[in-house]
Amino acid sequence: MREQFRTHINKFVNVGDDELTDIISYFHIQTLKKKENLLNEGQICKASYFVLKGILRKFFVNEKGVERTTEFAIENWWMTETFSYLNQKPTEFSIQAVELTEVLVIDRNAYNDLLEKHPVMERYFRCIYQKAYAAAQMRIKYIYEHSREELYHSFRNSQPEFLQRVPQYLIASYLGFTPEYLSEIRKKSIS
Amino acid sequence: MREQFRTHINKFVNVGDDELTDIISYFHIQTLKKKENLLNEGQICKASYFVLKGILRKFFVNEKGVERTTEFAIENWWMTETFSYLNQKPTEFSIQAVELTEVLVIDRNAYNDLLEKHPVMERYFRCIYQKAYAAAQMRIKYIYEHSREELYHSFRNSQPEFLQRVPQYLIASYLGFTPEYLSEIRKKSIS
Repeated sequence: MREQFRTHINKFVNVGDDELTDIISYFHIQTLKKKENLLNEGQICKASYFVLKGILRKFFVNEKGVERTTEFAIENWWMTETFSYLNQKPTEFSIQAVELTEVLVIDRNAYNDLLEKHPVMERYFRCIYQKAYAAAQMRIKYIYEHSREELYHSFRNSQPEFLQRVPQYLIASYLGFTPEYLSEIRKKSIS
Repeated sequence: MREQFRTHINKFVNVGDDELTDIISYFHIQTLKKKENLLNEGQICKASYFVLKGILRKFFVNEKGVERTTEFAIENWWMTETFSYLNQKPTEFSIQAVELTEVLVIDRNAYNDLLEKHPVMERYFRCIYQKAYAAAQMRIKYIYEHSREELYHSFRNSQPEFLQRVPQYLIASYLGFTPEYLSEIRKKSIS
């Protein structure tokens, strides 16, 4: 775990051995079974999660009772429900493990203490959020620009390994299809 | 300008008078005429912009040659094309002034120097990007959850003043309507 997190942090900032030990002391590890929820709709999000192993997804349930996945996080990605976390209001989302998943957890108070004591982590998280924002902006452009079918093909080309790991019904809930429609598109693209 | 920017910075961090003077020295002011572009599709985004007065919008031109607005920034909001900025690759977006607009500009090199010299600004920009990311996440949820007509009504209720300031054809390009369709919805909701 230590080496995996060190490698990620050192992509953005330089942290020595002793400082890393202290930084890691603000986190704890949590293991989730497949389909176990880290956060439920209506709760207040009080932590951020770094995926060590496995996959998380963020979703909401629409008026028709259908789950819509808005985000996935695989190894070395951060996941949180930032809106609820910042405003300390009940979230409209849930966060769930797609498969057996291990995460590094940092609670809100520990996060604030960490940033006070290790200003280098301000830079680290500034970079993380800057990248996350850039990705969300591109995501909005893609949703605006492409038909649902094009979204699937673009996703298939850009994330082939990911597509292998995630069940089809979750890919459908991310792209805004019914599972039946996704199945039709897949058949069309194979034939 | 100084007081406006000080008020904004001090919402997130504490900066004294002398430090503020030095921080502001990394920025310059730029004035844009209505419809003047700050950034053109194909250019590399090399700066971030803080709106002092006026409105900016970010848009791309789709395959059919239609402009699609993905983001607006009014007074005290930041605007940049983060994906191009981070990767130093040509942008797929343009940034344009909706009306006579005055912005504080910080170039990429100045931004890096500022963060080196004033670590307090790491915290400031971490907070800015954290908020921007939270807003983009909610935006994606809204696009997934609501019909286009619902999006207009939700926008009208949450941003009534903004709706007064921005021409209807830009609201249409933000919500993904043709101007004609927006005009129909407006008529329906008045009658």
